[in-house]
Amino acid sequence: MTAALVEIDERRLLRRLDELAQRGVVPGGGITRVAYTPAWVAATELVSAWMRDASFLVRRDAVGNVWGRVEGSRGGRAIVTGSHIDTVRSGGALDGALGIVAGIEALASLVARYGRPKRIVECVAIAEHEGTRFGTAGYAARAVADRLETDEALHAHDADGTTLADALRAVSLEPANAASAVRRDIDAFVELHVEQGPVLDDANERLAVVTAIGGNTQLEVVVTGEPGDAASTTMERRRDALVGAAEMIAAIAGAARDAGAPGVATVGEVAIEPAQPNVVPALVRFTVDARHADDARRAGLVTEIEKRCKAIGHAGELTVAVRRVRERNTLSLNARIAEVLRRASRASGVEPRDVVSVAGHDAQLLAPVAQTGMLFLPSIGGRSHRPDEATAAEDVVLGTRVLATALHELAFA
Amino acid sequence: MTAALVEIDERRLLRRLDELAQRGVVPGGGITRVAYTPAWVAATELVSAWMRDASFLVRRDAVGNVWGRVEGSRGGRAIVTGSHIDTVRSGGALDGALGIVAGIEALASLVARYGRPKRIVECVAIAEHEGTRFGTAGYAARAVADRLETDEALHAHDADGTTLADALRAVSLEPANAASAVRRDIDAFVELHVEQGPVLDDANERLAVVTAIGGNTQLEVVVTGEPGDAASTTMERRRDALVGAAEMIAAIAGAARDAGAPGVATVGEVAIEPAQPNVVPALVRFTVDARHADDARRAGLVTEIEKRCKAIGHAGELTVAVRRVRERNTLSLNARIAEVLRRASRASGVEPRDVVSVAGHDAQLLAPVAQTGMLFLPSIGGRSHRPDEATAAEDVVLGTRVLATALHELAFA
Repeated sequence: MTAALVEIDERRLLRRLDELAQRGVVPGGGITRVAYTPAWVAATELVSAWMRDASFLVRRDAVGNVWGRVEGSRGGRAIVTGSHIDTVRSGGALDGALGIVAGIEALASLVARYGRPKRIVECVAIAEHEGTRFGTAGYAARAVADRLETDEALHAHDADGTTLADALRAVSLEPANAASAVRRDIDAFVELHVEQGPVLDDANERLAVVTAIGGNTQLEVVVTGEPGDAASTTMERRRDALVGAAEMIAAIAGAARDAGAPGVATVGEVAIEPAQPNVVPALVRFTVDARHADDARRAGLVTEIEKRCKAIGHAGELTVAVRRVRERNTLSLNARIAEVLRRASRASGVEPRDVVSVAGHDAQLLAPVAQTGMLFLPSIGGRSHRPDEATAAEDVVLGTRVLATALHELAFA
Repeated sequence: MTAALVEIDERRLLRRLDELAQRGVVPGGGITRVAYTPAWVAATELVSAWMRDASFLVRRDAVGNVWGRVEGSRGGRAIVTGSHIDTVRSGGALDGALGIVAGIEALASLVARYGRPKRIVECVAIAEHEGTRFGTAGYAARAVADRLETDEALHAHDADGTTLADALRAVSLEPANAASAVRRDIDAFVELHVEQGPVLDDANERLAVVTAIGGNTQLEVVVTGEPGDAASTTMERRRDALVGAAEMIAAIAGAARDAGAPGVATVGEVAIEPAQPNVVPALVRFTVDARHADDARRAGLVTEIEKRCKAIGHAGELTVAVRRVRERNTLSLNARIAEVLRRASRASGVEPRDVVSVAGHDAQLLAPVAQTGMLFLPSIGGRSHRPDEATAAEDVVLGTRVLATALHELAFA
């Protein structure tokens, strides 16, 4: 098959990315658009307006996902594109946002040029992906895939004790209705996303087809020592939980370096009790996020991390408890969709690289209910989850045209 | 001179220590009686009531210190005893509280037995010592010694942004009047306190006379790296501020161990930005509290800490800024008062040890306006600033009798 690369409105695409980036902009730089906050509401309203402009049928489901739909002449199961609309704190303008804006642009251009599609097509702005506020990463895609935990919204709470259920109600969503968000009528989900890593940029390549999403393990480590006065408790007598935790944090980074790329381990949050300059810390709790494209090597890394933490605790007479908060194995994405994405890339003259994503994505969470595929664009300098996250405008345009070309094959041809 | 050990009401002393320990008791264990909070108000009211019971003239000064006074037949400058009434979070029942309850007991017993003193005597419950909430350690004693910083109460604020000035007003104290708390009519200040360290308990000794209070240096270290996605930022590309800070925290403990006892260094507070499990930390800010009985060796320890932090930052391509928040040199206490305390100790049959306190005390802060002296009792296991802080009841009684005996020599003889 020889596909022609689909045309889009480049200026509208880039202008809308800029406009969406204003929703949640923070004075210190970057975008903080946490799910179910006022900035998030403003962003979902903007995206809904664009969908209505394109004459999509727009609806918000029970967990806040916004779906824009165009009926297909043949009916059947839907072809869906999109990504998440929330961000981490002080994140960038493209992570998630690109997949939504590009999805709307691709479908609107296709409908404008080719008229009514054969298959039902939809673009979705997924409400919650990052888990920034409630630690419920992927909540909204898991709701669609019927993979929520029992009463998850009631149990999950933010640092101030507000539950996810409270936050949902505050934006007029009823947590008890979450099950109504389940979709069993999706055929394929195609997501355009920035790589969030350096592979494409380093290799000077412009497109990648994601063949699999690497697994990850999240740990919570609690180190318990003994409090003491910072002046008079001699160094010999201390059982300082923070000194122990500090040695563990350094050792965890060492274990990930020893495991080799693409193995990574990150300690991102640390809490201390009591947190006072003149008291020796009695308890430290920290998170560990460990990833590897290869499940066995990730398991090996996690075992090594646990071993090093326990050894440091033992040496410092500290109690160390390691809890596995989440464990996800590597997931292969759909081979047929990958082939459609490769064909669309080649239509642009670019032979795409195959990659395994180390970052988690909604495409992975939707895999239980849809054939899923992903297209990656280069992240300049590999920068991600930070204000200066960036992708060249010509790559954003190229990626959106390739996405449109793939959606053409899936739904219009 | 052969002094007789003064009698006191042992049961009342121990009962009152228990009663005061109920003000600010927390469910998880320990006492949280932070200055200018409701628990603190309750404690100051209890202490005021005991002072009135003993027919002391009671007044609260502009920073919340409660003074109980008995006029002396010869007038002149006052002989004062007491300590601080506030605690750290989840602190113990004796740190500060002992010096107040023992002071009231000693003066009440002396007046009951010997009648009106020759010198004016006072017991003071010092409002704020620990700096728990506002970081204004020693605020209330410094107010008495005319050592407040300009507009200190307006500038100091807690984690929620409430200023010390707001907190003072909330308990009907006017921060603009702080200067009225200055005292220039104190002759001597004698403080009974627990050691908060292991020296006496290890040596099985019961009393110590403090000859000097060791200096301390407080640093704030800010480590700046680069944020990044926890999944896709390879270990090689990371400039992880937390991994760097962790290495520094371990190195700081090592520097203090290398300096040798009584050198100590503590990292008690750590803040991370952005604090998320899936983002590589971009910035870490932590406190360092360094102490040594010898100023030159403390300065050496601080220099070594700065050197090690900078070297770690350099190796990890991190920016490291070290700010000296506070620097206090070792202060000798008054030799005449120390001799009075030694004589009083010997009257109990105990030859006291001389010690240099590594912890800071109100006696040190009042030194600009009074001759000051301190008596230490053993802390079981050296435990301090924690719920299980303890001193044997017979030592509490002994210390209070020795304090009373010293006050007898200073004010009644």
